[in-house]
Amino acid sequence: MTTVRTLPAVIAGIAALGAAGATAEPSAPKPAPVVRIAELEIDPAQLDAYKAALTEEIEASVRLEPGVLALNAVSIDEAPAQIRLLEVYASQAAYEAHLKTPHFLKYKTSTAAMVKSLRLVSTTPILLCGKAGFLPTDPAACL
Amino acid sequence: MTTVRTLPAVIAGIAALGAAGATAEPSAPKPAPVVRIAELEIDPAQLDAYKAALTEEIEASVRLEPGVLALNAVSIDEAPAQIRLLEVYASQAAYEAHLKTPHFLKYKTSTAAMVKSLRLVSTTPILLCGKAGFLPTDPAACL
Repeated sequence: MTTVRTLPAVIAGIAALGAAGATAEPSAPKPAPVVRIAELEIDPAQLDAYKAALTEEIEASVRLEPGVLALNAVSIDEAPAQIRLLEVYASQAAYEAHLKTPHFLKYKTSTAAMVKSLRLVSTTPILLCGKAGFLPTDPAACL
Repeated sequence: MTTVRTLPAVIAGIAALGAAGATAEPSAPKPAPVVRIAELEIDPAQLDAYKAALTEEIEASVRLEPGVLALNAVSIDEAPAQIRLLEVYASQAAYEAHLKTPHFLKYKTSTAAMVKSLRLVSTTPILLCGKAGFLPTDPAACL
């Protein structure tokens, strides 16, 4: 939860303020997460194949890459060939590393002819919260 | 992970098929999750107050309500008064229960004059995956 995570950060901040009067160097700032919306339109005739490739890529990315914190993909009910992704990376470096992985390159190559349009929207997170394992009994976690 | 969760479901399915030849009743289908995008435009003069109210509501909803599986809120960098939410509820019943909670009603009332427009977009999940606690070392979980 935010509150749990925030408390140590506050304490660290107070400690840093105290140290500022002494000779200690301030620690490096934590990298900001990169959060993005992707808006895609897929060739309807290839929609099932696209979803299969996307599913494989998402599962591998979140499982294998420490810096891929979340990838959420949905289709819009009124226009099922319209896909929306909410992507959460730990940092810009994590995002750039993701682009070089075998599973991402396979997805990008195999779906190139399926994607009619792609728009990437830079965003700033307000609050991202979820049950830790998507189960009702799981504790909440927030970023 | 999907694969871990899916295996028991497959086994249960095979068991159910076996039981179908006998007298056992099939079990009730699991409720489908409700996944939605909300697109909001906020009065720029009230944006900070809106974000504070939204943050409080999201944190309370995911922490207190078993059926609120995830609420993700971002602002669009090129138009910061444009807010996007990705909402994940365990079922339609969980969503309807959410609408009656004190924290949701407080948010709805307190932000009514801040929201210039609200568009709700019904979606179907393709795959939602995240690190269980939004930390790089956390295991992946998918819905």
